[in-house]
Amino acid sequence: MRAARYYGKEDIRIEDVEVEKCGEGQVRVAPSYVGICGTDLHEYLGGPTFAPTKPHPITHDTIPITLGHEFSGIISEVGPGVASLTPGQHVVVQPTLYCGTCSACTSGVENVCYKGGFVGLSGGGGGLSDSVVVPKRAILKLPDGIPLDVGALVEPLSVAWHAISAAPLTQDSTVLVLGGGPIGLAVVQCLVALKTKKIIMSEVSKSRQRFAREFGAHHVLDPKTYNLVAISKELSGSDGPDVVFDCAGVPASITTACQAVRARGTVVNVAIWEREVLFQPNILVFKEAKYTAVLGYQRKDFQAVIDHLADGSLKPEKMITSKIKLESLVEGGIKALINDKESHVKILVEVGVGGK
Amino acid sequence: MRAARYYGKEDIRIEDVEVEKCGEGQVRVAPSYVGICGTDLHEYLGGPTFAPTKPHPITHDTIPITLGHEFSGIISEVGPGVASLTPGQHVVVQPTLYCGTCSACTSGVENVCYKGGFVGLSGGGGGLSDSVVVPKRAILKLPDGIPLDVGALVEPLSVAWHAISAAPLTQDSTVLVLGGGPIGLAVVQCLVALKTKKIIMSEVSKSRQRFAREFGAHHVLDPKTYNLVAISKELSGSDGPDVVFDCAGVPASITTACQAVRARGTVVNVAIWEREVLFQPNILVFKEAKYTAVLGYQRKDFQAVIDHLADGSLKPEKMITSKIKLESLVEGGIKALINDKESHVKILVEVGVGGK
Ligand SMILES: NC(=O)c1ccc[n+]([C@@H]2O[C@H](COP(=O)([O-])OP(=O)(O)OC[C@H]3O[C@@H](n4cnc5c(N)ncnc54)[C@H](O)[C@@H]3O)[C@@H](O)[C@H]2O)c1
Ligand SMILES: NC(=O)c1ccc[n+]([C@@H]2O[C@H](COP(=O)([O-])OP(=O)(O)OC[C@H]3O[C@@H](n4cnc5c(N)ncnc54)[C@H](O)[C@@H]3O)[C@@H](O)[C@H]2O)c1
Ligand SMILES: [Zn+2]
Ligand SMILES: [Zn+2]
Ligand SMILES: [Zn+2]
Ligand SMILES: [Zn+2]
Repeated sequence: MRAARYYGKEDIRIEDVEVEKCGEGQVRVAPSYVGICGTDLHEYLGGPTFAPTKPHPITHDTIPITLGHEFSGIISEVGPGVASLTPGQHVVVQPTLYCGTCSACTSGVENVCYKGGFVGLSGGGGGLSDSVVVPKRAILKLPDGIPLDVGALVEPLSVAWHAISAAPLTQDSTVLVLGGGPIGLAVVQCLVALKTKKIIMSEVSKSRQRFAREFGAHHVLDPKTYNLVAISKELSGSDGPDVVFDCAGVPASITTACQAVRARGTVVNVAIWEREVLFQPNILVFKEAKYTAVLGYQRKDFQAVIDHLADGSLKPEKMITSKIKLESLVEGGIKALINDKESHVKILVEVGVGGK
Repeated sequence: MRAARYYGKEDIRIEDVEVEKCGEGQVRVAPSYVGICGTDLHEYLGGPTFAPTKPHPITHDTIPITLGHEFSGIISEVGPGVASLTPGQHVVVQPTLYCGTCSACTSGVENVCYKGGFVGLSGGGGGLSDSVVVPKRAILKLPDGIPLDVGALVEPLSVAWHAISAAPLTQDSTVLVLGGGPIGLAVVQCLVALKTKKIIMSEVSKSRQRFAREFGAHHVLDPKTYNLVAISKELSGSDGPDVVFDCAGVPASITTACQAVRARGTVVNVAIWEREVLFQPNILVFKEAKYTAVLGYQRKDFQAVIDHLADGSLKPEKMITSKIKLESLVEGGIKALINDKESHVKILVEVGVGGK
């Protein structure tokens, strides 16, 4: 079968690989659509970072590994002991790999498993191939009416859903979102689905500002033009936003987030940071604010996103800015994003028959 | 009357000043014992910082101002409209000054009032004088059986009580406290009062380590000898302390705090920071930990401390390492702390007749 295999920096090959067996408690999925994300770009440009260079503690694989962690597909085989699923069903795969025994896993936070990883980044196959075998627990059914291409958006939307679940939000909240990339835009959509009263987006790129407006942000501001701290206080009608999401992860954003948030408010950091930043904790002290951080998602986040897609409160179709074939993954996907990130939100790779 | 007046850096004078009037809703207190704290030292060595150099928005005073914000005393006069209090009562003064109208105050967080200050630091009199006039709401009665010298410890204990109230603690919690100065030692005592299962203290000074043991810390470790992160994980019997209090506020402590805390755990920062620090938010991201910060206290914290003093679960007498007269404030108090901070926890100044 075909698979997009990551060998290292700037080396991704579409190869013919052997099909894995589908064992006890496992499910074989034929991927339909697969999203490309910033993590894939990072691996391509500067990796291996996530991709294992020594045997991964869970998959035991090392590079080359198959890419693709944001995907929908169709069940093509179920292993022994998998009663509840049948071939032909449309599904989404939650790519989280976790050990189940580390102190994070045993305290119910398997999304930060100290040995953890992701299908499509850590070995054990990936979505960018004709077939991938995953444990039953990784499968979520996609209800009729949710197309398979939208199914491939469940993963980034679940990052956002997980992030907003970490904040003390109500429908009356004023929220500031820093950074309107795919993740910031997904946060905006989840906030809209929850009918959040005031959503302010800060983004430097004009085309991404446009996306933010389309997805329902009430105020979209360029931080180069506006004093974000002052204007978000003003727009909140009081002391500042109740919650600030940092989906930018640049040195300026941590300070802006902490300065903007109201007394006793919450900053939720979604970003992954490339390096240490200069930070003055007094900004939080003098208003007793909280800074909290999230990583990945849990099964319940995937389920919540699917439920909101099903009831129409999440309408993410416009995130799909391009669809390409597996064979043009590097040129039409990875390089297109590197060269013109801002006009894209999600490029989907059409892999399988379900996608046609 | 006598008053210790702060004029600026290294300039504190014991002077004769006029007695203020006690107006509507106000109470006159004759201070008995007054604690000297790090903030006083900072003002002396490098101020004015808190002390106003232009009219303070609440007191309208500028330096010189009277010092002394941690104090007990005896009511000597009550103004019109103060029915519930009478002269002769032993009391503690909560020194918080707040405006009542800013967005912090109106959202119930008057301890971070944007115009706020402290009796004894921001004008409006202070404990280091023969008489101070405060609003009725600043007064808490000291029950019989709590001596006036112990009453002067209520303020630093309230800082600690407020801090531990910001953490999701149970009796089963493992807690790491960084820094065993007066505040860290007060945190230990409050945790002991709550019967917290495992209290680990990190402190570099030998004599402060001894105090930490006396006050009931279960493990007292020198961070120069031990790998705090590794050993506190080991002592927690799992993933790390549930809560870490940063009462040190040195560049190393923010990283140690965030590295040591368990997945989904909470770091409570109590320290005030002299400058920005290098910080890597990913340390929090990869375990979804929270970083929260506290400032000052509220009336309920003062009341909780007094209640625990009354029922004997807080026994802070040993914090008092010296008692001096008002006339030797600078030599026997401020300079003694500057030159030999580590053998002291609290130096109390005996001001009034109640203290004799
Ligand atoms: N926590 C998780 O599980 C998780 C999952 C996926 C991605 N992430 C992280 O989330 C972050 C966002 O992901 P993404 O894919 O949307 O990235 P992205 O790079 O596409 O988006 C970041 C956006 O921030 C904007 N930006 C830059 N500086 C800004 C500033 N000062 N103010 C406002 N906006 C600014 C950029 O123009 C860009 O549009 C990244 O750090 C990524 O690593 C985290
Ligand atoms: N949030 C508030 O409302 C509030 C109120 C009072 C004080 N404070 C702040 O709390 C902090 C503590 O106050 P304090 O009076 O106890 O100060 P302190 O300076 O007496 O105590 C700090 C202690 O930390 C120790 N220390 C230094 N480096 C360390 C390290 N790497 N690991 C462990 N311990 C280390 C020192 O030896 C010292 O004993 C200060 O920053 C102070 O400004 C905050
Ligand atoms: Zn991704
Ligand atoms: Zn695990
Ligand atoms: Zn003090
Ligand atoms: Zn106020």
